[in-house]
Amino acid sequence: MRQFLSVHDVDDVQALVAEAREHKAAPFAFEDLGRRRTMGLVFFNASLRTRLSTQRAAQNLGMQVIVLNTGQDAWQLEFSDGTVMDGGSAEHIREAAGVLGEYCDIIGVRAFPSLKDRTADEREEVIGNIVRFSGRPVVSLESATRHPLQSLADCMTIEELRTVPRPKVVLTWAPHPRALPQAVPNSFVEWMRKSDVDLVVTHPEGYELPPRFMEDTPVEYDQAAAFAGAHFVYAKNWSSYERYGDILRSDAEWMVTAEKMAATDSGKFMHCLPVRRNVVVDDAVLDSPSSVVLQQAGNRIWSTQAVLKRMLEAL
Amino acid sequence: MRQFLSVHDVDDVQALVAEAREHKAAPFAFEDLGRRRTMGLVFFNASLRTRLSTQRAAQNLGMQVIVLNTGQDAWQLEFSDGTVMDGGSAEHIREAAGVLGEYCDIIGVRAFPSLKDRTADEREEVIGNIVRFSGRPVVSLESATRHPLQSLADCMTIEELRTVPRPKVVLTWAPHPRALPQAVPNSFVEWMRKSDVDLVVTHPEGYELPPRFMEDTPVEYDQAAAFAGAHFVYAKNWSSYERYGDILRSDAEWMVTAEKMAATDSGKFMHCLPVRRNVVVDDAVLDSPSSVVLQQAGNRIWSTQAVLKRMLEAL
Amino acid sequence: MRQFLSVHDVDDVQALVAEAREHKAAPFAFEDLGRRRTMGLVFFNASLRTRLSTQRAAQNLGMQVIVLNTGQDAWQLEFSDGTVMDGGSAEHIREAAGVLGEYCDIIGVRAFPSLKDRTADEREEVIGNIVRFSGRPVVSLESATRHPLQSLADCMTIEELRTVPRPKVVLTWAPHPRALPQAVPNSFVEWMRKSDVDLVVTHPEGYELPPRFMEDTPVEYDQAAAFAGAHFVYAKNWSSYERYGDILRSDAEWMVTAEKMAATDSGKFMHCLPVRRNVVVDDAVLDSPSSVVLQQAGNRIWSTQAVLKRMLEAL
Repeated sequence: MRQFLSVHDVDDVQALVAEAREHKAAPFAFEDLGRRRTMGLVFFNASLRTRLSTQRAAQNLGMQVIVLNTGQDAWQLEFSDGTVMDGGSAEHIREAAGVLGEYCDIIGVRAFPSLKDRTADEREEVIGNIVRFSGRPVVSLESATRHPLQSLADCMTIEELRTVPRPKVVLTWAPHPRALPQAVPNSFVEWMRKSDVDLVVTHPEGYELPPRFMEDTPVEYDQAAAFAGAHFVYAKNWSSYERYGDILRSDAEWMVTAEKMAATDSGKFMHCLPVRRNVVVDDAVLDSPSSVVLQQAGNRIWSTQAVLKRMLEAL
Repeated sequence: MRQFLSVHDVDDVQALVAEAREHKAAPFAFEDLGRRRTMGLVFFNASLRTRLSTQRAAQNLGMQVIVLNTGQDAWQLEFSDGTVMDGGSAEHIREAAGVLGEYCDIIGVRAFPSLKDRTADEREEVIGNIVRFSGRPVVSLESATRHPLQSLADCMTIEELRTVPRPKVVLTWAPHPRALPQAVPNSFVEWMRKSDVDLVVTHPEGYELPPRFMEDTPVEYDQAAAFAGAHFVYAKNWSSYERYGDILRSDAEWMVTAEKMAATDSGKFMHCLPVRRNVVVDDAVLDSPSSVVLQQAGNRIWSTQAVLKRMLEAL
Repeated sequence: MRQFLSVHDVDDVQALVAEAREHKAAPFAFEDLGRRRTMGLVFFNASLRTRLSTQRAAQNLGMQVIVLNTGQDAWQLEFSDGTVMDGGSAEHIREAAGVLGEYCDIIGVRAFPSLKDRTADEREEVIGNIVRFSGRPVVSLESATRHPLQSLADCMTIEELRTVPRPKVVLTWAPHPRALPQAVPNSFVEWMRKSDVDLVVTHPEGYELPPRFMEDTPVEYDQAAAFAGAHFVYAKNWSSYERYGDILRSDAEWMVTAEKMAATDSGKFMHCLPVRRNVVVDDAVLDSPSSVVLQQAGNRIWSTQAVLKRMLEAL
């Protein structure tokens, strides 16, 4: 595997999920594979799960890990070509990426969208330029429009927990006081569409996800109707794509509650975390046995390990 | 050992001190014990000695170490139960702790008190919730009311340097321009009370330490009387416990000076560092051979190693 | 080697360059040399290349690495002797350095100048005090007046690329919107003077480098004349030494351009990075095959590895 930016970099999702489960069963089976190899993790944004789980995955494979928090540890970067750099940015992404390529065998990058300029966000300038100028395999640690390591862990969690051959999976929008990216839901839809599930997306009007991710995925504007008979309920807030980055509503009507979960078929509750309690989902759901959010978070190690193993093998 | 939050988690202080001294004599005797184990260090506050010495201790035992600086690297956390999280906190300690438990075999936590709300500080919500929700052994890297790894290093230093079977140890309050926690003196008293020493605490009126730590420890309000014949003088500032978090005085009268040390029995000067020169203690003491503050700081490695070794053995 | 603060700590520059090239050819030939050894990296300022390349070099030699970002991770430090520390600084460099010495086998330090007080900057208080009070070998990761690891990588890059026995090397000042240190040019001159090259320094009047670094190095105030026949053009901005820290001009006249490079003898373009595009140098140069800035940055690993290997051998 030469890059891991989206589901399109994976030939067979089911096979990769199966490998992730093998890593979970035997975490150190390939602990010599990454010997003498260095992974660089570049964070343009805050991170807890991704930061820790990626380090664990790389270390389980025997790699060294170097973490760079840009802004805080290093310089502000410039992304536009041809700019006269006489402002706040001290370094251009071309040089920064080239240098990362000199020092690291594999590079992980987290770079959130601005949520101000949709066209710019969709260009994925940060991670795209690091791919282009580093000359190294790059793993997305969540980019402007996708979070594929999360989606792979989500696929793995559903595979571990499903009780029917083809479960009904509901992705539901939920309220949040801040404007959040569409990366997690975009990615989740993209990966679910390659999985053996019945996917339904439910959200208020105005929160339609980008057509290039949704394609013919059914949308149900009635949340209660969507939850009926669901085996998995995946909650997530996102800001509007149409009125890009806007918060159209934040009232509690779309919060996931125990009452709503009662309409599912013993549905499991999923969320990528961090989650705002009693805003996105109530305590009664999160503290119930139906919540699998920690198993999901734990699976971030093994899904990342499956990706890194393939990258190490291709070096 | 399943947790290390206070002296009450240690059955035999002398035996643990003896083990710490063995690690000092042979730092790498157990370098395979922590193989394939990951220690997570979570800092809610700044740290120099604890940050570096804990990494050294864990690495000497063969562990991998992952450091998380909350706030700076990740999200602001919520601690109250039942809250509607529509404010500044993006994640609840229940999820954060659970996730740390998924990624780490042993967790170290530093979380200072607010010094505003005594009852809340005494609840030790941060470290208590991480113990409760992570399901992993937790080591205090200084909590709101205690700093047990420091106290263990202090016990070790006194054991190394004592010239009489039962030395006189004086814990003296000293001035400081900022309001500081009571964690170090609380903990020092608690550990000294389990050691073979004569402990005297001296401070101005109004700086009484919490009765649950002091019990029947003698208090001497006359600093000169306390110093007479002392073998060890342990200086530390703390804010008032009674008028919680207040600075009642900061004049130089209680500063430790070479003149005052002359009244001791060749007393050794101790401080946990960082120390403000010529405020807490004068240069003449700190730069004299009687100062053992660096030996004390160095012993932080070995005392931590003794604790981590016991935790690794109990995994 | 007991310290690496300047070229004066190196007996034979050519031999050290040769060793760096051997590390590049066989990065892991000494991967057991640093076993059980810990390198502490202390950053008083931001860093990308130095941060990552030093970690890589230390890890290639089998060392553990601990990184401390002062200010952000720990406390503000005091450097003056005899001060009453009742202000913003919580710890004196004497204790901080001593403690680093307790925890680390080798210490790397980055500490930029103030550019306000020339005499204070030239005292090199930060790195000097860490050398004095840590009792450990110290490597400069760029101090107030020098950047020797960069210069060693520069020597190595010139050695790799030179096409004549004694190449003409031009160090040219270039414009920049911010006041920058003289450390890189000072150091470059110092190292070039020990190398088999013809060095010419070119800059506008008022940007003369300190005489103690320049000695009898020729200065050419006409940039075009300096470039004529050059084999290497090393561009760098620095603020005025005479009018200490001042920016005397920032217009584009001194920018390195493709037109100017055409006057060289197929000259290679060098810069230590980060570089401001179209301010210091235009895109046409940076994106041309004559630019060797990434090779230069990559060589930071191997030059550091050569230094650390010698230090490990002397422990």
